[in-house]
Amino acid sequence: MAEEVAQEQPRPTAPRPVRCIVKLGGAAITNKGELESINEENLRSACAQLRHAMSESDGDGATEKVLGMDWSRKPGDPADPAVDAEWIAGMAGLGLDTNFIVVHGAGSFGHFQASRSGVHKGGLHSTLVKAGFVATRISVTSLNQEIVRALAREGIPSVGMSPFACGWSTQQRKLASANASQIIQSLHTGFVPVLHGDAVLDELLDCTILSGDVIIRHLAQLLSPRYVVFLTDVHGVYDRPPTDPNAVLLKEIEVDDNGGWSIVKPALLQGNTKGVEISVAAHDTTGGMETKILEAAVIARLGIDVYITKAGTEHSLRALKGDVSTDSEDWLGTIIRSSK
Amino acid sequence: MAEEVAQEQPRPTAPRPVRCIVKLGGAAITNKGELESINEENLRSACAQLRHAMSESDGDGATEKVLGMDWSRKPGDPADPAVDAEWIAGMAGLGLDTNFIVVHGAGSFGHFQASRSGVHKGGLHSTLVKAGFVATRISVTSLNQEIVRALAREGIPSVGMSPFACGWSTQQRKLASANASQIIQSLHTGFVPVLHGDAVLDELLDCTILSGDVIIRHLAQLLSPRYVVFLTDVHGVYDRPPTDPNAVLLKEIEVDDNGGWSIVKPALLQGNTKGVEISVAAHDTTGGMETKILEAAVIARLGIDVYITKAGTEHSLRALKGDVSTDSEDWLGTIIRSSK
Repeated sequence: MAEEVAQEQPRPTAPRPVRCIVKLGGAAITNKGELESINEENLRSACAQLRHAMSESDGDGATEKVLGMDWSRKPGDPADPAVDAEWIAGMAGLGLDTNFIVVHGAGSFGHFQASRSGVHKGGLHSTLVKAGFVATRISVTSLNQEIVRALAREGIPSVGMSPFACGWSTQQRKLASANASQIIQSLHTGFVPVLHGDAVLDELLDCTILSGDVIIRHLAQLLSPRYVVFLTDVHGVYDRPPTDPNAVLLKEIEVDDNGGWSIVKPALLQGNTKGVEISVAAHDTTGGMETKILEAAVIARLGIDVYITKAGTEHSLRALKGDVSTDSEDWLGTIIRSSK
Repeated sequence: MAEEVAQEQPRPTAPRPVRCIVKLGGAAITNKGELESINEENLRSACAQLRHAMSESDGDGATEKVLGMDWSRKPGDPADPAVDAEWIAGMAGLGLDTNFIVVHGAGSFGHFQASRSGVHKGGLHSTLVKAGFVATRISVTSLNQEIVRALAREGIPSVGMSPFACGWSTQQRKLASANASQIIQSLHTGFVPVLHGDAVLDELLDCTILSGDVIIRHLAQLLSPRYVVFLTDVHGVYDRPPTDPNAVLLKEIEVDDNGGWSIVKPALLQGNTKGVEISVAAHDTTGGMETKILEAAVIARLGIDVYITKAGTEHSLRALKGDVSTDSEDWLGTIIRSSK
């Protein structure tokens, strides 16, 4: 699953390397136990940290007046939103390095609809699968809309891009067509594309679910970001379910050319690849942990460091800034990197 | 503006001709005077009529149990939605001819954001235009989301497709790139694509607004639907603003090969092309009436009848069914057709 390279359509040249691809994990930004419920606090914090990481000034950004870009009417508020057009027009620029891509998971959005109908198994001749496809897309695109809004409120010029609508498709669940030209165009013009796991068409199965992790891996292969960050609801990858009091955080994992991986830190688990049941969050069902690690390993093999860490912490802020190295003793998270 | 043909990328063959492209006019489905306010009654009625027009059975569909495809949690309702998976899986099929495309206008969505920032004029180096681009897209895509939901609740397997995300772009406001392959794929697999007027990238101006009317004209040129329907908030095209008590509804307009047009009915205005100030709705600002008529004229010249009529009436239902001819004395609306 992690190995195929999707067929590309002609694409414009990327003008400058992408700095970072960020995964906002479904477990971090939604309340998994409650259908279609956003974890507002975590989402707001992730967006504020992203803005901080993009900021070209040295300050922490807390005192700057933010140019909010969600000018929609707030629910229940009869007044039109206040937009200070004169102040905005007078700004020299956004002061942000916007060369980021955001991909988010579904969490408590889409899962109910997809599992109820079996969209991932395909078969659009079935009325249940067809209806479930529509219902799943409604749910995940409504989450996408809220995430684009949350980023825009933090002054990040975000634009939603749905993989299905962009024509991304699979063949027997493997990515088969993935036109990234509009993503590159958007980056080039200073926008931050916001993609998501989606229900897509499949050449053999009619349809399936394309996970955010596969999207990230493909974009990393294509655009060679400096680093990739996965924000989740635990501190990183553990040797067993993180709810287990004896669970040990794996701080550094090395991936070799053959796709094999070994634990570098902590030293007590060094070289151990069997007998540890790698786990991020027990309730993260999208693709499961194995897929996630596999996709991250493919990225790391390209020489791109992958940081997996907990959203809304000082560690996630450092990861988003790219301010993490294998020597960072005080950084809590998992680094997955190439052995070369 | 109405004449250019956008550059096409390779596309799969359309398996069967599209039956109808429907424009849900912004004036019909939103409350124009109130920012981001949907005209729920008109939207519900338009969706129910669309379902009726798609229905393959002879009945009026009123007694059939509708397979709702919006399985999201309703705001304020703590319970998960009830989805009778067994009943749905047992259905032989949807019983609908889904070979329709829906395009909607923006109405009271997007207009505030676009006009406040001047997105249509371009210039993304300006922070105001960049922020306005983001704000406009948030507003129009939130309307798209609500329209997809309303169609899905009526059992129409609708999928939202944003022109910007699909890579549609312009060159000096003329459509330059318009990849319809995913629209065709969606139709082929039995889904109803739902597009909308959008903020898009422009090769010369950086960005502009692409109107729903231009999208419809392009799709009509490409896919040759049997007929095209514009649903609006008045009965059709008038010889002066419809608020004028002396306004006369133009029932039939003929377009010749050179793009010239003349009034056929009512007979008293026959041949008159000057001295009538053609008007649909005075407050419809997207592109203005002249653009709308020009786009409709381009479609009619291809031999495709265009019906402009009032949403939520018996006349709109007949138009959606394609049950209108130039002999239909009791049909209220405007037919624009080729003189050949």
